[in-house]
Amino acid sequence: MPNTNRRSLLKTAAALPLMAAAPNAAFAQAAPAAAKPEPAKDVTRTLAKYIVAGRYDDLPANVRKEGVRTLLNWVGVAIGGSHHQTVDIAVSALAPFSGPAQASLLGRHERFDIMNAAFINGVSSHIFDYDDTHLKTIIHPAGPVVSAILALAEMQPVSGKDFLNALVLGVETECRIGNAVYPNHFDIGWHITGTAGVFGSAAAVGKLLNLTEQQMTWALGLAASQPVGLRESFGTMNKSFNPGRAASNGIFAALLASKNFTSSDSMIEAKRGWANTVSTKQDYAEITGDLGKRYESALNTYKPFACGIVMHPSIDAAIQLRNENHLKADQIERIELKVNPLVLELTGKKTPHEGLEGKFSIYHAVAVAIIEGAGGEKQFSDRAVNDPQVVALRGKVVPIITPGVDTAQVDMTIVLKDGRTLHRHIERAIGSVEVPMSDKQLEAKFADLVEGILPAPAIRGVMDACWNVEALPNAAEIAKLSVPA
Amino acid sequence: MPNTNRRSLLKTAAALPLMAAAPNAAFAQAAPAAAKPEPAKDVTRTLAKYIVAGRYDDLPANVRKEGVRTLLNWVGVAIGGSHHQTVDIAVSALAPFSGPAQASLLGRHERFDIMNAAFINGVSSHIFDYDDTHLKTIIHPAGPVVSAILALAEMQPVSGKDFLNALVLGVETECRIGNAVYPNHFDIGWHITGTAGVFGSAAAVGKLLNLTEQQMTWALGLAASQPVGLRESFGTMNKSFNPGRAASNGIFAALLASKNFTSSDSMIEAKRGWANTVSTKQDYAEITGDLGKRYESALNTYKPFACGIVMHPSIDAAIQLRNENHLKADQIERIELKVNPLVLELTGKKTPHEGLEGKFSIYHAVAVAIIEGAGGEKQFSDRAVNDPQVVALRGKVVPIITPGVDTAQVDMTIVLKDGRTLHRHIERAIGSVEVPMSDKQLEAKFADLVEGILPAPAIRGVMDACWNVEALPNAAEIAKLSVPA
Repeated sequence: MPNTNRRSLLKTAAALPLMAAAPNAAFAQAAPAAAKPEPAKDVTRTLAKYIVAGRYDDLPANVRKEGVRTLLNWVGVAIGGSHHQTVDIAVSALAPFSGPAQASLLGRHERFDIMNAAFINGVSSHIFDYDDTHLKTIIHPAGPVVSAILALAEMQPVSGKDFLNALVLGVETECRIGNAVYPNHFDIGWHITGTAGVFGSAAAVGKLLNLTEQQMTWALGLAASQPVGLRESFGTMNKSFNPGRAASNGIFAALLASKNFTSSDSMIEAKRGWANTVSTKQDYAEITGDLGKRYESALNTYKPFACGIVMHPSIDAAIQLRNENHLKADQIERIELKVNPLVLELTGKKTPHEGLEGKFSIYHAVAVAIIEGAGGEKQFSDRAVNDPQVVALRGKVVPIITPGVDTAQVDMTIVLKDGRTLHRHIERAIGSVEVPMSDKQLEAKFADLVEGILPAPAIRGVMDACWNVEALPNAAEIAKLSVPA
Repeated sequence: MPNTNRRSLLKTAAALPLMAAAPNAAFAQAAPAAAKPEPAKDVTRTLAKYIVAGRYDDLPANVRKEGVRTLLNWVGVAIGGSHHQTVDIAVSALAPFSGPAQASLLGRHERFDIMNAAFINGVSSHIFDYDDTHLKTIIHPAGPVVSAILALAEMQPVSGKDFLNALVLGVETECRIGNAVYPNHFDIGWHITGTAGVFGSAAAVGKLLNLTEQQMTWALGLAASQPVGLRESFGTMNKSFNPGRAASNGIFAALLASKNFTSSDSMIEAKRGWANTVSTKQDYAEITGDLGKRYESALNTYKPFACGIVMHPSIDAAIQLRNENHLKADQIERIELKVNPLVLELTGKKTPHEGLEGKFSIYHAVAVAIIEGAGGEKQFSDRAVNDPQVVALRGKVVPIITPGVDTAQVDMTIVLKDGRTLHRHIERAIGSVEVPMSDKQLEAKFADLVEGILPAPAIRGVMDACWNVEALPNAAEIAKLSVPA
C-alpha cells in the first residue's frame, strides 16, 4: 500500500518560487508607476524573528503604559457590549459546536473553547464602535489581539508581564502590516482591522505558545491566508464579526503552526503573497524598519465618543460650542462643517432610522451632540436617532467637503437665528494622540460601559487588575474578574 | 442602566449605501476601461433566492449524474489523503479544542464537531491535488462543499436527495461566483478554491439548514467576509488548508445567519463588496444568468493524474507515446513540449527534491510518465522525484512557451537518439469535459486511493453508497462507511 510514501510527503516546508516568469497582469496596471517597489525579501521571516525574540524587559516605559491603557479600554468595551443582541445571537449559534469550556465570555456566564471565546469577545468589543484606534491606519488593534491572548491565558497560565509583551508584539505586528498597505488596501474595500488583525492575533498567540522562528513564520503565513472583512459590511452585525473572526483565525493559525503545519516563508511579501494580493501599495519598510525602536502600539488612541473616528472632531467642536454658549437647538439656523472627504464617504447617512445607523451619520452625530452634550452609546440608540428635536436639527447640519482639512480636523461655524455666528477650529480632537484621554477619563468610560453588567465593587476590581497587569502571576485573573458573579 | 437601548440596536439588517460619493481610487486605475460594468443590483439576493428555492426535482438527469460522480470522486480522495502527515498534524493541533464528536474524519477514528471535521476532511481531500476541477475557473468544487454538508448530515439527518441537491447548489454557487471574477482574481494571487469555496459551503449548508431568503443573503455576506487562500501557499501544507478552511468558514457563516446574524444584502456586488475588492473583473451575469438552466456543476471533471491540471495534457501525451512505442528512457535525446504559458508559471520547478515539489514540475511529471507509464500519487512521492533515472530524463524535457496553445492542450515531440521523432498533439486530455473519465476509471482511482485504509469489501460498500446516494434515507451513511471499522 502506498501510505508510507504519502506520509513522507511535506516533511518540511517547500516554499516554491513558482511564479518568477509571469507578470501579475491585473495588479501591474493598478500599481502607481512611481511606487513600484524593489522585490522584497525576508519580510515575513524578519517580522517572525522579531516577535520570537521580543522580551518584556525590552519594552520602553511609555510602550508598557500604553499597552496597559489598551488593555483597560478593551476590557471595558468588551464587557460593555456583551449583552448586545449581536452577541446573544452569536452565542446561541455557536454554543452547540463549542469545544471544552476553556475561556470566559466577558460579561456573561457561558464559557467556550478558546477560539470561539475569542470570537465572541472580539465581537463584543467592537459592537459600539467604541474600541481603540491606531489613527494612521484606522485599525482597531485590541479586538483581534487581546480577545485571542486573554482566552489563551485562561487555558495556559500566562504571567502579566508575558501577557503585556504579547499584547504589544501583536499590536506592533498588525499595525506595521497595516501601515505597509494603508490607505490603498482600505480604499479598495477591506476592513483593515479584520485583515491586518489576523496577523496580530497569530503573532501574539504564537508568542505565548513559544513558537520557533520557523513556526512563527508559518503562523504568519496561515494568518495571511485568512483575511477577514469588507467595508460593505459596515452598518450590520457583520462589522463586529470581523475583529472577532480575526482573533479566532489568528489562534487557528498559531495552533497549527505550533505542530509544524507548514506555509510559505514569504507569505507577506511574495509576488502572489498577501500584500500584492490585497493592496496596490506595499511599503515593507513599515513592517521591518526600526523593529524594537519605533512602536506603533505607543500611538494607540481611545474613543471618547461611541462612533467612527472621523466624526470625533465634529462632535468635539459641537460639544465645546454648546457648553461655552449654553446653546439650545431652537437658536440654531445652520451648522456648517468643513470636513475631510472621508467624513461623508464613511458617515454620509442623512436619515438614520436605527441607533446603529446613527454611527454612520455625521448629521445625527452633530445634532445629538448639540442637544445632549455627549457622544456616548446612549446618543447612538434608537431613541436618540428618532428624537424629533434631533431629527429637526440634523436637517440643519451642512458638511462641506474641504480637501485641505485633515480627517483629524474640523472647522465648524454655527449660524444662529439672531444673526450671530459661533466658530471653532479643531486641530486635534479629544482622544487623539496629541490630546489623549486621561487615565481618569478612561476609567469613567469603562464604568459607564460596564455599569449594570458588573456591580460597582467588581468594576473597581477589574479596572485595578488591568492597571496592575504587570504584577499579576496569571493574566487570566482579568477574565475571571470580568464575569458576573 | 443603558442596556435596554443597547439590546434594541440592530434588530434588523441595516445595509447602508455609505459609499456613494467616493471613487474607489486604487481599483479605478486597475479596471480595464472596456470592461467597466454597470452598477450591479441584487446579485447576492438573486443568488440567495435561487438557492432557497432550488429543489432536487428541478435538477436535470445529467446534473444529478455529475453530482453523484463529484461525490464519489471526493470521498475517494478524502479517504485517500486521510493519513497524510498534514492531516495528522492538523488533527493533533485541533483535537484539544474541538466541540462534541458530531462528525467523522473520513478514513480515521477521531470525531470532531462539524466545523473542525469539515476542515480536516477538506484538507484530506486536497492533499494529493487529485480532487475534482471546474476547468473554467480551476476551482476544486467538492472540497469546500461536500466536506461541509457531509459533516452536517451526521448531526442532522439529511435525505440523499436533499444532500445531492445541496451539493449541486453549493457547486453552482462557487463556480458561478468564480466565473464572475476569473481569471483576474486568480491572476492577482488568490487561491480561487478557497475564496469562492466559502460561498459554496455557506450556500449548501444554508440550504440544508432551511435558511430563509434573507438569512441566505446574510450567509453569503458572512461568507464574503472570509475568503481563504493565496497562491503563494502552493507547494506547502497551506494549500490543502484552503479548501478545508473554506468549508468550515462557510458553515460558520450559515450557522450565524440561521440565527439572524446580519450582513449587508449586497456583499457580492456592492462598490466595496467582495467582487470589487478581490478582483478587477466582475461579470455578474455569470452569477445570475440562466439560473436553473445553465449548470456549471455539470462541467465538473476528475483528475486521472495526481497533480495540477495544467500538466495533464503533457502526461497524457507522454503515456500514449510511451505505450504505443514501448519507449525506454535511454532511447530519448530530447522531449519538446509546446505549452501554454501557464504551464511554466505554475509548474516550472526544474529540480524538485520532495514528492510534493514534483507536482509543481512539468519536467518531473513528463519524465516519470515516460518511465513509469502513470501519473498517480506514487509518481509524486519522494522516491519518484529522487529516482536517478527520472532525474536524468527530466533534464531532457524542454517546455516551449507557445501562446496559441490552450492550457488543455500540448504538442509533444520526442526526439530519439536514433534520429527518429515521435509526435503527439493532445487537443483535450483524459479527464477533461470532452474526454471524461468513465465511471469505471473513477472506481479504479477510488480503489487505488483507499486501498490500505479500508478493506476491499468496505471500499465496494462506500462506492455503492455514493452511486446510490439518491436512495439513501440519510446521506450520513456515506461518512459512516468511510471510517475504518
